[in-house]
Amino acid sequence: MTGALLLRDVRPMGGAALDVLCEGGRIAALAPARAAPPLAAPGATEVVEGGGALLLPGLVEGHCHLDKTLWGRPWWVNANAPSREARIANEKRLRGPLGMDPVREGGALLAAHLAAGTTRLRSHVDVDEESRLRHVEALLGLRETWRGRVEVQLVAFPQSGIVRTPGCEAWLDEALRLGCDAVGGIDPSEVDRDPVRHLDLVFGLAARHAKPVDIHLHEPGELGAFALSLIVERTQALGMAGRVVVSHGFCLGEVPAARADALLSMLAEAGVALCTSAPAGSAVPPLLRARALGVTVFAGNDNIRDTWSPYGAPDMLERAMFVGMRNSLRSDAGLGTAFDAVTASAARGCGFEGHGLAVGDRADLVLVEAETVAEAVVTHPPRRLVVSHGRIAHRAP
Amino acid sequence: MTGALLLRDVRPMGGAALDVLCEGGRIAALAPARAAPPLAAPGATEVVEGGGALLLPGLVEGHCHLDKTLWGRPWWVNANAPSREARIANEKRLRGPLGMDPVREGGALLAAHLAAGTTRLRSHVDVDEESRLRHVEALLGLRETWRGRVEVQLVAFPQSGIVRTPGCEAWLDEALRLGCDAVGGIDPSEVDRDPVRHLDLVFGLAARHAKPVDIHLHEPGELGAFALSLIVERTQALGMAGRVVVSHGFCLGEVPAARADALLSMLAEAGVALCTSAPAGSAVPPLLRARALGVTVFAGNDNIRDTWSPYGAPDMLERAMFVGMRNSLRSDAGLGTAFDAVTASAARGCGFEGHGLAVGDRADLVLVEAETVAEAVVTHPPRRLVVSHGRIAHRAP
Repeated sequence: MTGALLLRDVRPMGGAALDVLCEGGRIAALAPARAAPPLAAPGATEVVEGGGALLLPGLVEGHCHLDKTLWGRPWWVNANAPSREARIANEKRLRGPLGMDPVREGGALLAAHLAAGTTRLRSHVDVDEESRLRHVEALLGLRETWRGRVEVQLVAFPQSGIVRTPGCEAWLDEALRLGCDAVGGIDPSEVDRDPVRHLDLVFGLAARHAKPVDIHLHEPGELGAFALSLIVERTQALGMAGRVVVSHGFCLGEVPAARADALLSMLAEAGVALCTSAPAGSAVPPLLRARALGVTVFAGNDNIRDTWSPYGAPDMLERAMFVGMRNSLRSDAGLGTAFDAVTASAARGCGFEGHGLAVGDRADLVLVEAETVAEAVVTHPPRRLVVSHGRIAHRAP
Repeated sequence: MTGALLLRDVRPMGGAALDVLCEGGRIAALAPARAAPPLAAPGATEVVEGGGALLLPGLVEGHCHLDKTLWGRPWWVNANAPSREARIANEKRLRGPLGMDPVREGGALLAAHLAAGTTRLRSHVDVDEESRLRHVEALLGLRETWRGRVEVQLVAFPQSGIVRTPGCEAWLDEALRLGCDAVGGIDPSEVDRDPVRHLDLVFGLAARHAKPVDIHLHEPGELGAFALSLIVERTQALGMAGRVVVSHGFCLGEVPAARADALLSMLAEAGVALCTSAPAGSAVPPLLRARALGVTVFAGNDNIRDTWSPYGAPDMLERAMFVGMRNSLRSDAGLGTAFDAVTASAARGCGFEGHGLAVGDRADLVLVEAETVAEAVVTHPPRRLVVSHGRIAHRAP
């Protein structure tokens, strides 16, 4: 049982000023600020004066790679060639010489994420011929270290394919047995050169372990659309609605609008969600259209400062800004939609329970100096206070 | 004559540590850090210890709208409809009720720009039936106020067209006579519904006043390409190579690659430069291809926190990051190209003289904590020191 915490005079989502009482890791009560009698908890209650600051729910990182980041290290000069294949090969080549350590760098990234208000996070973790189960074991340990501060989901991710990587299916099976939260997949035609076999392996593992699926799909145009249809077939056959995510889904931004609509409707009906990093340089699923048709769309950073990409930061408010910019969302309502992609929709898409600002939700709270949610997205200001599981996790210096 | 300033132990562009002496507003001497005898200037020389920090040249804002920004004001809730026409109309409708003041808000933006290392800036200034010469006069005054700190170029910008705006040609003529540095234009087919007449008026004004041209071109696909060809014809007929800029040029990112190549080669031959804000949600001219074909490409923020857009910040390092992200530039070399778009190429494109880090260049300098130029682009860290015209303009608190 954690001690009680009272945030006084804060404006949840920019609304009227409230006092928020956290007890036992949950939001225990909400009352108008300066109400009489004031909210009080038995015993030792720490009080934070909010001064009318904006209160947000804990932010959710929907897609990152804790085992790839160089976060916390000196700048690494990237001289890589500009293709996905080169990036995969380079990473394997460089990992040893760079002395990369998923626990050290992944931990540094988690610490920075938490200080920026991220309290739930989904990370993919490489399972390939180079790492086998090494990264899985490292990150399972890291997940335990951070339990109670950042809730981490791990997706066992066959970065280099399953069919073409002897042993990979067994490693994935073992990764799920060891405690990974979901099974991943990647570009079933382009990487494994056999979309049906790749997806049958992925969904077979998911069914065997009763765990959800999250598939990297960068495949272009109608090739990607075909993969979506195969994913939907398997989702429906296994009754996995609400437990399947397609990450990236560039193809949905490449096919004509009417075709994209048909694909999005198919995903909505099957209960397949989409995760996007809203890359400025790639096609992306049309956010507003996907939502209008009933698809859950959420956001993740994807690569953060690693051998793949120099960009990215552990700041989901900045990522929400990128989502807004990529989708040309300029109104406050639009910015609210971008914010939803790093909070409520991300929690729903990943299956994080008890997310929000209602009584009973987990007391994961972020306090910033901003008038509105839209302003917080655009300015992504320093976090004044971050509360995770009812405890203060970060306080601005 | 300004007092002398000595920056000791700084790494220009990430190279070897040097001492940099500024005198009379110019870079007077460069010498290896801790050389014997050390660099010294006669009389009172202020000394700044750089501690090996990264030294960059002054940043250049290639395209903004000082008279549109809401910078420095409380958050404004944007409930605008998502079309360019609606944005133009909304701005006119809102300007009065909001009590917008181009000198106050434009000045606040200039101050923030300078503190972030921007020492040269090109702003468009509305000349339309609502503002007539009011914004021009306001910003000409602001330009004087900031002379010696931020070098401001003003482009007389017919936001609502020339042909369809009675009186506009005369106002533009007067704006140029009053001291505007260049004449603007906008979407000659879509706005004025008469591309030839619009461009003849723009280039006629340019020829009469012997001033350069900078045209907003959002027109799509082959309509935009046709406008480019008309602009090139007039540039060549008037011998204006190096004095014409096309801002945005979305069409160059929309037509097939081979067609874009042909258009870019045409622009290169005519000496027409491109300015881009690298918007994540629109097509953009392909940066690397344009440069390879000999086109000067530089960057500007365009709208910053105004009724058009909630996004943007007076930080050209962040804008360089957006340029890199939009063009999928991931290597350090690529990030260097993005940096060039907010420094050397921007100075060339706008015609700002004496930009750089060589002896004789204007002493506009930015000091940041970063290992390399690439890191500075990605992290756009706080500016430790900004020197403009040889004088300290900003020092980190």
